[in-house]
Amino acid sequence: MADLPKHVDIHEEGPREGFQIEPGPIPAPDKLELIHALAECGLHHIQVCSFVNPRLVPGWADAEAVCEQLQTKPGVDYTALWFNENGLNRALAFADKLVLSGSISLAASNAFTQKNLNRSHAENLAAMRKQTEVHLKHNIAVTRVGVMAAFGCNYQGDISAEQVVATVADGMAIAAEHGCTIEKISLADTMGWATPIRIERGVAAVRERWPGIAIGLHLHDTRGLAVANAHAGLRLGVTQFDTTVGGLGGCPFAGQKGAAGNICTEELVLLCEEMGISTGVDLDRLIEVGRMAERIVGHMLPSELIRAGSLGAFRRQAA
Amino acid sequence: MADLPKHVDIHEEGPREGFQIEPGPIPAPDKLELIHALAECGLHHIQVCSFVNPRLVPGWADAEAVCEQLQTKPGVDYTALWFNENGLNRALAFADKLVLSGSISLAASNAFTQKNLNRSHAENLAAMRKQTEVHLKHNIAVTRVGVMAAFGCNYQGDISAEQVVATVADGMAIAAEHGCTIEKISLADTMGWATPIRIERGVAAVRERWPGIAIGLHLHDTRGLAVANAHAGLRLGVTQFDTTVGGLGGCPFAGQKGAAGNICTEELVLLCEEMGISTGVDLDRLIEVGRMAERIVGHMLPSELIRAGSLGAFRRQAA
Repeated sequence: MADLPKHVDIHEEGPREGFQIEPGPIPAPDKLELIHALAECGLHHIQVCSFVNPRLVPGWADAEAVCEQLQTKPGVDYTALWFNENGLNRALAFADKLVLSGSISLAASNAFTQKNLNRSHAENLAAMRKQTEVHLKHNIAVTRVGVMAAFGCNYQGDISAEQVVATVADGMAIAAEHGCTIEKISLADTMGWATPIRIERGVAAVRERWPGIAIGLHLHDTRGLAVANAHAGLRLGVTQFDTTVGGLGGCPFAGQKGAAGNICTEELVLLCEEMGISTGVDLDRLIEVGRMAERIVGHMLPSELIRAGSLGAFRRQAA
Repeated sequence: MADLPKHVDIHEEGPREGFQIEPGPIPAPDKLELIHALAECGLHHIQVCSFVNPRLVPGWADAEAVCEQLQTKPGVDYTALWFNENGLNRALAFADKLVLSGSISLAASNAFTQKNLNRSHAENLAAMRKQTEVHLKHNIAVTRVGVMAAFGCNYQGDISAEQVVATVADGMAIAAEHGCTIEKISLADTMGWATPIRIERGVAAVRERWPGIAIGLHLHDTRGLAVANAHAGLRLGVTQFDTTVGGLGGCPFAGQKGAAGNICTEELVLLCEEMGISTGVDLDRLIEVGRMAERIVGHMLPSELIRAGSLGAFRRQAA
């Protein structure tokens, strides 16, 4: 058996991923109810909103309202997403509540960059240089390189581990140019192409090249393999995962209407805790929050675990 | 990376598992449509019905009607389930179409045996001795030992690998007493307690004790970990899996109403084929059959893959 980590850090992205994709509108008090409940589960990182163009993402038109009414809990990092200086400025207005750090975000698929951002990879590198300068100007440390479509792409097909390494290297070069210290490399299975063997190859290649830097996985359950992929990551020592409670979210990319969202937080917690890896999360409480998320969005979420319940209650009955 | 097998044998149980749990009634022609479509996907083993008490399992009251109208395809083994001599006699009436073989079926949890069968383990061993004699009397070879609740139990809690080995040993002793050659040991995660680490421990312990006998896994996706568990099994050389198209089925046991059914056939096929393990199954065709299964039962099934589609179509577009 592999050397599994003793602890993993879970970054809950359910509010941000979920509410951006729901047809909605979902009232800000409902969003806040979910965020506040998540904080009571023992999660230490919660991404609460996106500061993005409200015409493009109407689900987050009320990001300011949510942040204004956000009640922060000590020990929890509340984070947000933005893509440009305007978004950063909106986030900076809540610097008292949010933990702000900068990312260099690239895609391992040139076709994805072109379709999703209407830029070539070279143009995206230029944009990331500029964004890094904007972050530094605002005293926001740039600590993360993110790679989307790291395991395959609806527009480009398979993505090799070499392509992932080359993309990370492009991001690391931008960081080096600007004197930034990268603390985390995040590999995203944006469109659900990952399999355990691709996770093994991609993570191993990145770890070999940058052995001192933490690797995070952002997994989607588009084709039902997310938990198996997470397990493959755990076996290679990955200790940071982005997840969404209940499996909130979806896949806005070509041909994937109705597809599942991110890996479910509670299923990852179950996997970890049952294998002796601590998460700090109260699973039974989190399952209740998953059920709350279903009520808020008004439809079934993909999580199987919120229907079945944890093993703890059965263990207590059986004892 | 582990030595993965080159090929796995998939035993499709969607018709049997699925139609027994649906409130129904589902007309026999719909059941046959599904079975016939499954046979066109390249599956070589399809469990088509249960010969059980129609008062207890009304969904299979029409087992005879289905078998009468079943059109068999050369190269496909059509199988059925029964629990007693009456059921066996009903199956024997279709010996021209069905492949009949006998099982010694036990549970690693005494509490489960008591709740599910209203027998002690010792009484169940006696019943299995009697059933083995009945099989042999009818010239049905007894080739399989099955262990339910092999990875945990709603009534008994955790189940150790030692308990699994002891239960298999009880079954092997019955086989030996009757001169039967066991070709397969099937471990069932009946109530969705398995995790990759429990699969590793259970499979490794059984393989160490009976190195020459094939091990099969019957996995349920009750808590979303079935594909990860299958992957753990593949890494240990498991080459036989019971699955259901679309994730048909459910969990009729305590406190699990609404829980997911078996591991989805198409998600296992995706996992295998994308990792270089052949299954013989045409995945795109199988996904269409999963969608057919949803139409037949009239509600959403748990499979994510039937919503997202395979990677093949995207690869062809991207090429």
